[in-house]
Amino acid sequence: MVTPSQGFEVSSVNVPLGGRSYSIQISSGASDGFAASIRSALGDVSHVLVIADEAVDQPWAESVSAALAASGEEASPIRVSRTTVASGEPSKSIAEMDRLLQWVLQKGGDRRSVIVAVGGGVIGDLAGFIAASFARGIRFVQVPTTLLAMVDSSVGGKTGINLPGAKNMVGAFWQPSLVLIDTDVLSTLSQRSYLSGLAEVIKYGVIDDAEFFAELEDQATALVARKPAALRHAISRSCQSKASVVGEDERETSGRRAILNYGHTFAHAIEATAGYGKFLHGEAVAIGMQMAARLAVDLGMCDPSLLDRQTRLIQACCLPTTWADADPDAMLPVMMRDKKVAHGKLRFILPTKIGAVEMVGDVDEAAVRAAIVKLKS
Amino acid sequence: MVTPSQGFEVSSVNVPLGGRSYSIQISSGASDGFAASIRSALGDVSHVLVIADEAVDQPWAESVSAALAASGEEASPIRVSRTTVASGEPSKSIAEMDRLLQWVLQKGGDRRSVIVAVGGGVIGDLAGFIAASFARGIRFVQVPTTLLAMVDSSVGGKTGINLPGAKNMVGAFWQPSLVLIDTDVLSTLSQRSYLSGLAEVIKYGVIDDAEFFAELEDQATALVARKPAALRHAISRSCQSKASVVGEDERETSGRRAILNYGHTFAHAIEATAGYGKFLHGEAVAIGMQMAARLAVDLGMCDPSLLDRQTRLIQACCLPTTWADADPDAMLPVMMRDKKVAHGKLRFILPTKIGAVEMVGDVDEAAVRAAIVKLKS
Ligand SMILES: NC(=O)c1ccc[n+]([C@@H]2O[C@H](COP(=O)([O-])OP(=O)(O)OC[C@H]3O[C@@H](n4cnc5c(N)ncnc54)[C@H](O)[C@@H]3O)[C@@H](O)[C@H]2O)c1
Ligand SMILES: NC(=O)c1ccc[n+]([C@@H]2O[C@H](COP(=O)([O-])OP(=O)(O)OC[C@H]3O[C@@H](n4cnc5c(N)ncnc54)[C@H](O)[C@@H]3O)[C@@H](O)[C@H]2O)c1
Ligand SMILES: [Zn+2]
Ligand SMILES: [Zn+2]
Repeated sequence: MVTPSQGFEVSSVNVPLGGRSYSIQISSGASDGFAASIRSALGDVSHVLVIADEAVDQPWAESVSAALAASGEEASPIRVSRTTVASGEPSKSIAEMDRLLQWVLQKGGDRRSVIVAVGGGVIGDLAGFIAASFARGIRFVQVPTTLLAMVDSSVGGKTGINLPGAKNMVGAFWQPSLVLIDTDVLSTLSQRSYLSGLAEVIKYGVIDDAEFFAELEDQATALVARKPAALRHAISRSCQSKASVVGEDERETSGRRAILNYGHTFAHAIEATAGYGKFLHGEAVAIGMQMAARLAVDLGMCDPSLLDRQTRLIQACCLPTTWADADPDAMLPVMMRDKKVAHGKLRFILPTKIGAVEMVGDVDEAAVRAAIVKLKS
Repeated sequence: MVTPSQGFEVSSVNVPLGGRSYSIQISSGASDGFAASIRSALGDVSHVLVIADEAVDQPWAESVSAALAASGEEASPIRVSRTTVASGEPSKSIAEMDRLLQWVLQKGGDRRSVIVAVGGGVIGDLAGFIAASFARGIRFVQVPTTLLAMVDSSVGGKTGINLPGAKNMVGAFWQPSLVLIDTDVLSTLSQRSYLSGLAEVIKYGVIDDAEFFAELEDQATALVARKPAALRHAISRSCQSKASVVGEDERETSGRRAILNYGHTFAHAIEATAGYGKFLHGEAVAIGMQMAARLAVDLGMCDPSLLDRQTRLIQACCLPTTWADADPDAMLPVMMRDKKVAHGKLRFILPTKIGAVEMVGDVDEAAVRAAIVKLKS
């Protein structure tokens, strides 16, 4: 659905979750309208708590806060409080949770308050968990500011923090009431971080949407150049794919949600063995999808042309397709510890054709090693 | 339903919550069978994490842990880890949550682990929140060891911790998989704490169950003397009442669950103005129910005989029915801050007859003051 709003084009994707359904609104240059969107989607809004990544506090979080405060009427004023969180993964901690919960309380938060998260996946996960836990759950709105957050972390209701040595170990399933995406917000994001987000976009094409994959092949140059129309379309189709998977398996119980892990068992092992920091997450996912596709071809599950097309698209998006230092001896033990391992057997999400994947249990270790080694060049 | 189990009488109450339904098993001297009950109700159990109040670690938590470990078979062993928590409300803190989450991780907790809470409401609320949050939610079993926890806090899925100055401000709705009650566990509980729990039992009679109220009138002496049969019956009927209310309003959204707050708006003001510690919670609830019934009589909502019967039953249970130091000037401001106040109007759960209550909004402040003053003697 595409609806004109205040002269801008805003497309909207519905996340179908019964009483917890919500919409993702995607636009370019329409963030002036965010305050109005929040009021119209949430109804009774009198106290808003904005939690922002320090890197995007100015101008984005500040302008959304000001617009919200200004949108109150005399009869129903809106009180807005705002705090910033240090950029980076270490903020997803119990210490930061403690600080934010006390901040919400001190600002007079109650069951009717609304939390607005402005930032990348770190802020969305952290602020979402605050929303899930304060007063046993209050409403929250996601304003994602990285491409990864727009197409992945802000959709689906997974919130949480890390324990020392254990990422995302603590959290809740808690759905936002609204997700507001303005592609203009990405203007300050580094090209490397932006491209990294494109890896997840490509993922949706491979696992769920052959037509979208073909569109990405056509639009790769426009996407790398961040052309707004191509970008809005890519975000919208990605969110549609994620929303439909989440709608079928909200709490990760049926197994359906596992298809979102395409490339990720390899990617986690790449991130861990390369040393955290060498690859951005999306870069590791790009290489991980290559290993998974290679494995699928080797197992006779799909045609080699799938790997060729995926390789070309990843390259067109300026992302890595190989890793010269890949070491199966180092990667395998990490993969065996991964949550996707059941009773010591390696399980993978593998493509059968563009747009379709299957969960394969009990994959031969030698085949996995071979796929890793083949992707060294 | 009453089913014989291992020669003991175990009655069981079902909490009807669709896919999250669970049973509360009530017995005397049957805690030897807890391990078997857990395995049969939960199915796949290979790693159990027991979190116990230090006051009941010996013998109760230790014996449940030993029985669980011993009940594993060679093909499917059960690993049991156990930790204790300091007695008392201050343990419901983020610091203790942090410690316990790291303990669960360090003991190898994963999505299939099971948490068992052995203690009163403090341990149940805290361990329940750990279960709700670890890996975004794992199974847990309540083994309540105070009467209040048996009839109230262990049923209904409210879990959580306190913030400085704000009780139960952080938490989750997270239902247990099973509640195991053995009245023998109460043998070490002080008489004062035990009697305090009876106030909540009386509450269920007034708000929901006239027949039960009459039984309590008959059985008051037996209950004060902790006769097992009378006690099991009282716990069972109390849990039935709470279960049916929770079944209708799991997440406190329809308003139905508010009836459980009968007497509590007054009680919270009594606890706050008497200085925390002067009254146990149930003692304040007893006086609070008297004030609420008095208010209902004064407003012409119910017959004065209701107050008379309630007074006699509370007295027969050796609980206070009046408070000489009650000060409406101190209590009213606390009541106005209470969550049950909407837009500055006082709201109360008031009885219309034994077994039935109504939510009354917009109660005249003068009538509230008068009810408080009349209960000074
Ligand atoms: N909840 C989920 O379903 C889900 C899914 C995937 C990832 N995640 C989580 O998301 C996190 C990663 O998300 P991320 O990649 O967005 O990381 P991030 O939030 O750390 O953002 C990356 C960096 O970009 C900066 N930044 C954000 N927006 C910016 C902008 N508009 N301009 C300039 N700089 C900007 C941040 O300050 C940060 O330094 C991880 O913690 C991961 O666990 C969650
Ligand atoms: N979740 C809910 O729905 C709900 C409902 C009501 C109350 N609560 C919470 O419950 C808590 C109060 O519960 P409580 O009254 O059980 O308090 P508690 O857990 O603090 O127990 C009271 C005292 O009794 C001791 N104790 C417990 N079992 C014993 C035993 N068998 N023998 C000897 N000593 C024993 C404890 O060490 C403690 O000192 C509060 O934190 C309250 O917020 C929760
Ligand atoms: Zn990813
Ligand atoms: Zn109570």
